[in-house]
Amino acid sequence: MQTKLLLIVCDGLGDRPVNGVTPLEIANKPNMDTIASEGICGIMDTVRAGIRPGSDTSHLSLFGYDPFKYYKGRGAFEASGTGLKLQKGDVAFRCNFATIKNGRIIDRRAGRIEDGLDEIANDINTIKLKNIEIIFKRGAGHRGVLVFRGKGLSHNVSDVDPENENVPYNICKPLDNSIDARKTAKLVNEFTKETIDILSKHPVNREREGKGKLPANIILCRGAGIKVDMPSFEEKYGMSAACISATTLIKGVCRDVGMDIIDVKGITGHIDSNIANKADAAIKALKRYDFVFLHIKGTDEASHDGDFNSKKSMIERIDKEVIGRILKHLKDIKDITIVLTADHSTPLSIKQHSADPVPIAILGDVRADDVKRFTERDCAKGGLNRICGINLMDIIMDLSNRSKLFGA
Amino acid sequence: MQTKLLLIVCDGLGDRPVNGVTPLEIANKPNMDTIASEGICGIMDTVRAGIRPGSDTSHLSLFGYDPFKYYKGRGAFEASGTGLKLQKGDVAFRCNFATIKNGRIIDRRAGRIEDGLDEIANDINTIKLKNIEIIFKRGAGHRGVLVFRGKGLSHNVSDVDPENENVPYNICKPLDNSIDARKTAKLVNEFTKETIDILSKHPVNREREGKGKLPANIILCRGAGIKVDMPSFEEKYGMSAACISATTLIKGVCRDVGMDIIDVKGITGHIDSNIANKADAAIKALKRYDFVFLHIKGTDEASHDGDFNSKKSMIERIDKEVIGRILKHLKDIKDITIVLTADHSTPLSIKQHSADPVPIAILGDVRADDVKRFTERDCAKGGLNRICGINLMDIIMDLSNRSKLFGA
Repeated sequence: MQTKLLLIVCDGLGDRPVNGVTPLEIANKPNMDTIASEGICGIMDTVRAGIRPGSDTSHLSLFGYDPFKYYKGRGAFEASGTGLKLQKGDVAFRCNFATIKNGRIIDRRAGRIEDGLDEIANDINTIKLKNIEIIFKRGAGHRGVLVFRGKGLSHNVSDVDPENENVPYNICKPLDNSIDARKTAKLVNEFTKETIDILSKHPVNREREGKGKLPANIILCRGAGIKVDMPSFEEKYGMSAACISATTLIKGVCRDVGMDIIDVKGITGHIDSNIANKADAAIKALKRYDFVFLHIKGTDEASHDGDFNSKKSMIERIDKEVIGRILKHLKDIKDITIVLTADHSTPLSIKQHSADPVPIAILGDVRADDVKRFTERDCAKGGLNRICGINLMDIIMDLSNRSKLFGA
Repeated sequence: MQTKLLLIVCDGLGDRPVNGVTPLEIANKPNMDTIASEGICGIMDTVRAGIRPGSDTSHLSLFGYDPFKYYKGRGAFEASGTGLKLQKGDVAFRCNFATIKNGRIIDRRAGRIEDGLDEIANDINTIKLKNIEIIFKRGAGHRGVLVFRGKGLSHNVSDVDPENENVPYNICKPLDNSIDARKTAKLVNEFTKETIDILSKHPVNREREGKGKLPANIILCRGAGIKVDMPSFEEKYGMSAACISATTLIKGVCRDVGMDIIDVKGITGHIDSNIANKADAAIKALKRYDFVFLHIKGTDEASHDGDFNSKKSMIERIDKEVIGRILKHLKDIKDITIVLTADHSTPLSIKQHSADPVPIAILGDVRADDVKRFTERDCAKGGLNRICGINLMDIIMDLSNRSKLFGA
């Protein structure tokens, strides 16, 4: 009797203790604890023990795609996430609209610009570089995606975005000795200069400056990536699959493995997101799809900000508005296996991703253990022990009675 | 906020219960227990579950060098440990000065000979074999190193040393069908005969026999090895690193990965070693190096002797003279991550290495668990669960906030 699968990933959820306690340990989250106490728990290295995962590599791994094989830069997933279809040979970059003054980046988000970006994007698309085509698309907020299309390009080039402020932007450099990498780096540097030229006198910026706002007078590229051929999720697992996420990168990964992307109103990828709508969308999607992936970003955002209370309250919101809602609706449905976990830890003490394993709890036809609370340290005593993210899909395919027999 | 790393390895520390209890379980070791109770604990397969590691393969693995890829015989590390610099194509052997009588090895250590060995070594170096150069160097105690230098040599040959007494020595045999292995085996057998010829009438031996001591009248070779190209520790991890060990083999492994070897007075590699001096040297070295490796051999020696009390009291000495000393000095220093573990188990019941996982405890910015004692069975309940030695460096690089992000 096959079950459907609901995979809930709270981004950056795992932590290290702060004054002896983690946000998961102190948050009031009765519904997560229900999944832990009625299910089987464990800890998981989403990529490999000791490897600090990005959100891209960790999600690839959680979906069963070995990131050491399939990961070729973030840009390609960002492009997919904004709806751009990459072709073979394309190199894609994540971009920020930023503010430069006297040669220094003074705001990497150009005052969190949101208006006028379509006009700016149109003009960026007029930039001509030798022998290649340029496709630029604005994304959410101050973000965009740049694609270089042409022959002899490489994604093995460094970032222009210094990911820091009050410093100059970086000159893009080839990361290997190939002609393609050197050519691509040169094109990126030309592109960057062109954006400064076009944007310095752009009407949108004139208007902003008139209102005392920071101009978006440079486009900063980073995370060069190429599209990689991957077997589709449906080919691999024989399941129809849908993604619910507000995060461009995550939507890109999901789109690239062939999941349907479900649009949900009011979701932002921030701590203010309407996550109850996500839960409702997931409940609805489970009627139509075999596998539903529900991603919530707010926990990671709070972690990067180093804000303990914000992380704790985001966990409490997820517990009530997502997990509680789902448990209530699914209460009498026996044909669903629910997996609650994270893509990586983002300890508040370091405000960045770490390799500390994440807690995981699986509710379904499982060997329920005696773990009562969904926390990093409680789950470490669970019946799953310590597992690896690359094996998760196999494990939950099996627990939902969908696996093929190996042997006879 | 990066921390420094101190890796303390007690050789052969892990055990199986004897009359229900292991030496670690019965020893009085409050300081090790402090690391366990304030840190995160686990058990570790230093090479791979079920693989019985040598001290060479286990240390390679603990340093992050896959021994299945990089291990090519013990001899090369012994040579490096005695200060010999191997060249490409050299084959190196560990050697014992031993006593043979009527064709049988009656003492593999020639009465634990220590005197006159320089003179003997000089004469061994006069041996001429066809087309190859011989380099022989005495080591600590009754040990030495032999290097064959020339073309067409192989390390894939068997041992002459039977590692047993009252038996003849072994004829060296090729372990594959190559011309090189056959040639090398022949040369080893010629060398062995030559040592008997030279040593039978050697003045050092005549004098020993006059005093009723056993003569060193044969050199027994084993552990043929070649030098392997490995990326340096600093290249791999970006850390400066130092080794504190009295054991030739371990120093050889450390030297070959590019660590600095710190000389310490009064250390012997036996249970009588001045290990307090080692602790002081480690404390000092931590000011200068990012990574300090502190190795203590006595626990393994006691295990090979099958001496429960000796192992127990060695553990108590380490606790007091090493761990206590270090904790006292580092008490107020927050920027060090301390790892306490072993390279393999050497159960007293079998007097040899076993694949039983070793206990491990890590003190730093970690998810401290509720393990209170540093023992094999307590640590098995710890928050690290069961890890693999090859992942240890990644794990502790992450915990000391030195890892690179994989992905974005």
